[in-house]
Amino acid sequence: MPQFALLQNDTFLRALLRQPTDYTPVWLMRQAGRYLPEYRATREKAGSFLGLAKNPDYATEVTLQPIDRYPLDASILFSDILTVPDAMGLGLYFVDGEGPKFERPLRTEADVMALREPDLASLDYVFKAVTQIRTALNGRVPLIGFSGSPWTLACYMVEGGGSKEFHTIKKMLYNRPDLMHRILETNASAVAAYLNAQIDAGAQAVMIFDSWGGALADGAYQTFSLQYMQKVMAQLKREKDGVRIPAVVFTKGGGLWLEQIADIGADAVGLDWTVDLGRARALVGHKVALQGNLDPAILFASPDQIRAEVERTLTAYGKPAAGGGHVFNLGHGISQFTPPESVTAMVDAVHSFSRQQRA
Amino acid sequence: MPQFALLQNDTFLRALLRQPTDYTPVWLMRQAGRYLPEYRATREKAGSFLGLAKNPDYATEVTLQPIDRYPLDASILFSDILTVPDAMGLGLYFVDGEGPKFERPLRTEADVMALREPDLASLDYVFKAVTQIRTALNGRVPLIGFSGSPWTLACYMVEGGGSKEFHTIKKMLYNRPDLMHRILETNASAVAAYLNAQIDAGAQAVMIFDSWGGALADGAYQTFSLQYMQKVMAQLKREKDGVRIPAVVFTKGGGLWLEQIADIGADAVGLDWTVDLGRARALVGHKVALQGNLDPAILFASPDQIRAEVERTLTAYGKPAAGGGHVFNLGHGISQFTPPESVTAMVDAVHSFSRQQRA
Repeated sequence: MPQFALLQNDTFLRALLRQPTDYTPVWLMRQAGRYLPEYRATREKAGSFLGLAKNPDYATEVTLQPIDRYPLDASILFSDILTVPDAMGLGLYFVDGEGPKFERPLRTEADVMALREPDLASLDYVFKAVTQIRTALNGRVPLIGFSGSPWTLACYMVEGGGSKEFHTIKKMLYNRPDLMHRILETNASAVAAYLNAQIDAGAQAVMIFDSWGGALADGAYQTFSLQYMQKVMAQLKREKDGVRIPAVVFTKGGGLWLEQIADIGADAVGLDWTVDLGRARALVGHKVALQGNLDPAILFASPDQIRAEVERTLTAYGKPAAGGGHVFNLGHGISQFTPPESVTAMVDAVHSFSRQQRA
Repeated sequence: MPQFALLQNDTFLRALLRQPTDYTPVWLMRQAGRYLPEYRATREKAGSFLGLAKNPDYATEVTLQPIDRYPLDASILFSDILTVPDAMGLGLYFVDGEGPKFERPLRTEADVMALREPDLASLDYVFKAVTQIRTALNGRVPLIGFSGSPWTLACYMVEGGGSKEFHTIKKMLYNRPDLMHRILETNASAVAAYLNAQIDAGAQAVMIFDSWGGALADGAYQTFSLQYMQKVMAQLKREKDGVRIPAVVFTKGGGLWLEQIADIGADAVGLDWTVDLGRARALVGHKVALQGNLDPAILFASPDQIRAEVERTLTAYGKPAAGGGHVFNLGHGISQFTPPESVTAMVDAVHSFSRQQRA
């Protein structure tokens, strides 16, 4: 195990643990991505998206690009959420402009019965990348590890790719809940082991992305997504070498279930832009930190508009009391079409306005 | 003005007005549609979707198809939500598998400044269809007229078609709110006039579909969607020949804003499947009726599962008190891949279980 450099900026970790901070920390979902010309150059070198994601050198390079360009308060492992089902043998591939697909989706009872947790050794490229990134960061900001949620992974595993209506998996969910639960049990154990291995490799916080929980009906969400994120939380290492490892859960479109999400044991809950931050804080701010929630589309507006909306978001959360408890972020991944200078305006506005709020 | 036959089944209208009913009435969004073989036959005859929607004879034929097949409690005008911007001269057309598009989307300040309310005469085919359908229904069930919401129409008008991220319109919204408000003002007046003409032609209830309100950030939703639906409500005829014309508003993904939606003056609020009906009733059931909210994907399950989920939904709403106040529906339009016999199971389950609930 390498000895890592001392962390110089712990604002993000403190905010997740609802400890006082001098300002509101900020990072962006998908901050290493196609909107950055330097990312596109590395992607070109790597030849393909998977060539990039599966190579620890390239993954390290692109993870650090936004950190070099902007004064962000956290970095996040560059990887794909579908590494785990890929390692389960489903055969991940990408078709340009169509997103991820699986060669062998889970469609029959036999497919489901044959599903096994992956050998973590086959995900070694991820853990290597984590250690390499943490080393390269040299203590500048903390490194976040991540995974898709058991339900979100299952969506891709059963649908065989992205989906708008999720008919295939919902058909399984309503007709064969036994098969659905079997997949989700396997995914929950695999996700917990995967995140724990990222923590062992050097991740200083972890996040679970439940991108498709919001597609579920009330009732089904609790049974088929939330319950399994709770199982992941229960199996997570929450401390490493005596240091707390905060965990964030984020269900896109989950605003209606906020109080239930805040009860599964995570340190922080991610919010999309449909949620009023002030109301969310009033409901669950005594239990968890909140992460979010600017509409990524605001980054297409002028710098003045961006500053105004950042201020509106920070004001909605309200004046930080003793504990900060707010990590600024977008409510979803940054768009590939975002002008990079919009991020400069956003990050500067978060830092300067949140300092003013505390003054 | 023709004299229409006496209404034989007013359960739907009574439920919208929160008056006692013997059972919970049910209809389905997009009930006249591609999942029905008889619809596909008419569509074939008509040659194209617009050829069908713009021909009152065909529109009448398909509107009555689900009424003939199932004991539904309401019919809804067969039309497209984009008839109004089409009549504004934007040039609606359809590309197979890609949904609606506009030849002349609103992209520049000059485009927006040139926008005018449509001449209602150019929408006469819609009003003719309404009268013809009401006549053909012969009083069996009430006829619902409808329109897209000002914001939802604007999404298509600015984006030029469907969208996933709504970058173009959100860019306008954040950078040029003045232009955005101008479009929405025009749309609100046009929608009100359009719905009032449908009421004059024979519609017995009206519904506003805000399909894309849920894409907006909290704050932006209230300013750019809800406010303009309220303007429509304020201009609507609420009575015709001494009979109340109930109005329903439905923002897909609007569950977080339920209390605000219930305050704009509609008689009923539509809900998607992410909302807990019991909680919604507790919040706003004293002000408005509720319409919804089965996940359309449940119609891919077995008849037994469908019955179980219908029962769960009716139980979530709870035992009807003096006023019914619940109209059963899906939480979104029925999928074209739905087996028609699933609808039989659903409608029968709604009727029989809701009668039991009242016994």
